[in-house]
Amino acid sequence: MQFVRNLENLFELACSNGASRRRVAAVYPHDAHTQEAVEGALKRGFADFILVGRVAELQALPFVDEYADRIEFVDVPDSDEAARVAVQIVRDGGADVLMKGKLNTDNLLRAVLNKEHGILPPGTVLSHITVAEVPNRDKLLIYSDVAVIPEPTLAQREAMMGYLVKLSHTLGIKTPRVALIHFTEKVNPKFPVSTDYVALKEMAAQGRWGDVIVDGPMDIPTALEPEAGQIKGIISPIEGQADCLMMPDIQAANVFYKTISHFGGATNAGMLVGTMAPVVLPSRGDTTEGKLASLALACVAAMH
Amino acid sequence: MQFVRNLENLFELACSNGASRRRVAAVYPHDAHTQEAVEGALKRGFADFILVGRVAELQALPFVDEYADRIEFVDVPDSDEAARVAVQIVRDGGADVLMKGKLNTDNLLRAVLNKEHGILPPGTVLSHITVAEVPNRDKLLIYSDVAVIPEPTLAQREAMMGYLVKLSHTLGIKTPRVALIHFTEKVNPKFPVSTDYVALKEMAAQGRWGDVIVDGPMDIPTALEPEAGQIKGIISPIEGQADCLMMPDIQAANVFYKTISHFGGATNAGMLVGTMAPVVLPSRGDTTEGKLASLALACVAAMH
Repeated sequence: MQFVRNLENLFELACSNGASRRRVAAVYPHDAHTQEAVEGALKRGFADFILVGRVAELQALPFVDEYADRIEFVDVPDSDEAARVAVQIVRDGGADVLMKGKLNTDNLLRAVLNKEHGILPPGTVLSHITVAEVPNRDKLLIYSDVAVIPEPTLAQREAMMGYLVKLSHTLGIKTPRVALIHFTEKVNPKFPVSTDYVALKEMAAQGRWGDVIVDGPMDIPTALEPEAGQIKGIISPIEGQADCLMMPDIQAANVFYKTISHFGGATNAGMLVGTMAPVVLPSRGDTTEGKLASLALACVAAMH
Repeated sequence: MQFVRNLENLFELACSNGASRRRVAAVYPHDAHTQEAVEGALKRGFADFILVGRVAELQALPFVDEYADRIEFVDVPDSDEAARVAVQIVRDGGADVLMKGKLNTDNLLRAVLNKEHGILPPGTVLSHITVAEVPNRDKLLIYSDVAVIPEPTLAQREAMMGYLVKLSHTLGIKTPRVALIHFTEKVNPKFPVSTDYVALKEMAAQGRWGDVIVDGPMDIPTALEPEAGQIKGIISPIEGQADCLMMPDIQAANVFYKTISHFGGATNAGMLVGTMAPVVLPSRGDTTEGKLASLALACVAAMH
């Protein structure tokens, strides 16, 4: 394929590396949602698993026999302890992706972020990245950060930009177009996000992130509709064809995420980045396809 | 009609008061967009007009003859001066709605907000309110503030709440359900918006805004999908059937506004509130129907 245009392409890319399938450490997969995603990934063929939890119960799962050679078990009866063990497996190179099961997100993050035993390298920015497939759009839409950084500083935005560009390149988008989203095109020091954007554009122009087109501040229509910029008389190299959207803050990002799902019929895949291995945190509200796509996304990202 | 469910109902309500049609002062209507909305409102029959601008040109507009008895002209060759004159007409009770034509929004706002000659009563909060018709939704969605208040203080949120409730009642929604939008359900002092929401709920419970159901913080799916709250185990009197959304800030509101249009096929009507008369600011990106609906919304709001 030329580049990953939709979630089906993403699954294909995830499977294309079948000879060395990614290994996913699943933390306490004792809920139907997580088990569904595990089974789906086994079936699709893009991941092997290390299930960390109450082994007797996990071994009794109906799909386990069929994929016996692709599942390992580690017996840890406590969910928080399971998080620590799974994180250690990732640290030791035993798994390429970490996946949350039935435990509190904060407790999993505590193990991930632990200074001594965690998997966030010192000085690295933790962020979240989402990839959406939207009906009637001819390519995926990559955006951040819906979940981790409330109001990014410029340094955090630099890291976010790096993650957006890297994932785009991984998905085969040679020169991704990153739109810097703001409610207006105007740069105004009263809104530091707009001056941060000027700095990001300058860094991009200096080659900081390699092959990429960065422009903004601009609003959603200007980023995504070729006609919108024309009506406003805006000339932008994005040309209404953004691959990536950098959102101003978590409120806007989260509203975007939930609005394209509710009103736009989008399916979202997401993961934490910045860590030694991508971390997948399926939430109860995610669709089955979304959870499986998140896992595929993390497996693809873990290849690079 | 029981209540205003869609934009067609809104037009019907605007027209129902035909015997005393609302009077709209149009500031410098020398662009095709504004003229289209003026003609549409004349045709629909819900507004009469005072056109403030270069009269010789305005009198030559093709639709003027047909509606001669419903249009007045005031000759002001300069657009900024036209703003001042139109605002004075509103102050004097000569018009019920103010509408922007071909001039800079900031210049119109300068006349509107002028302390001596403007139309914002002292101590009153200026805000913007939007009403959206979205395909496959069985009622309108009312939300704020996409345009005026960047990061509302609690006092500003109180005013915004008042505007949302008042407009809901005007549209015949007896007990509007107002969802207070945040990226999470958790109240956390690190996010003042979440503690502001607690205060707003308390005020609503004390009867501050009359007949209304207020709840939050909650996210978009919990506000709009009956199943979403159930999955998360959230019991809310909103029951996934919000009539109104209070957005946390302008970034989130603006992203919502533009995302439901781009991805959800929504038509938005909007106006400034808090002023002595509603102010309509059509933007170049609005659809023809959206501009006309904004005018109808302002005329309906001006009745109350």
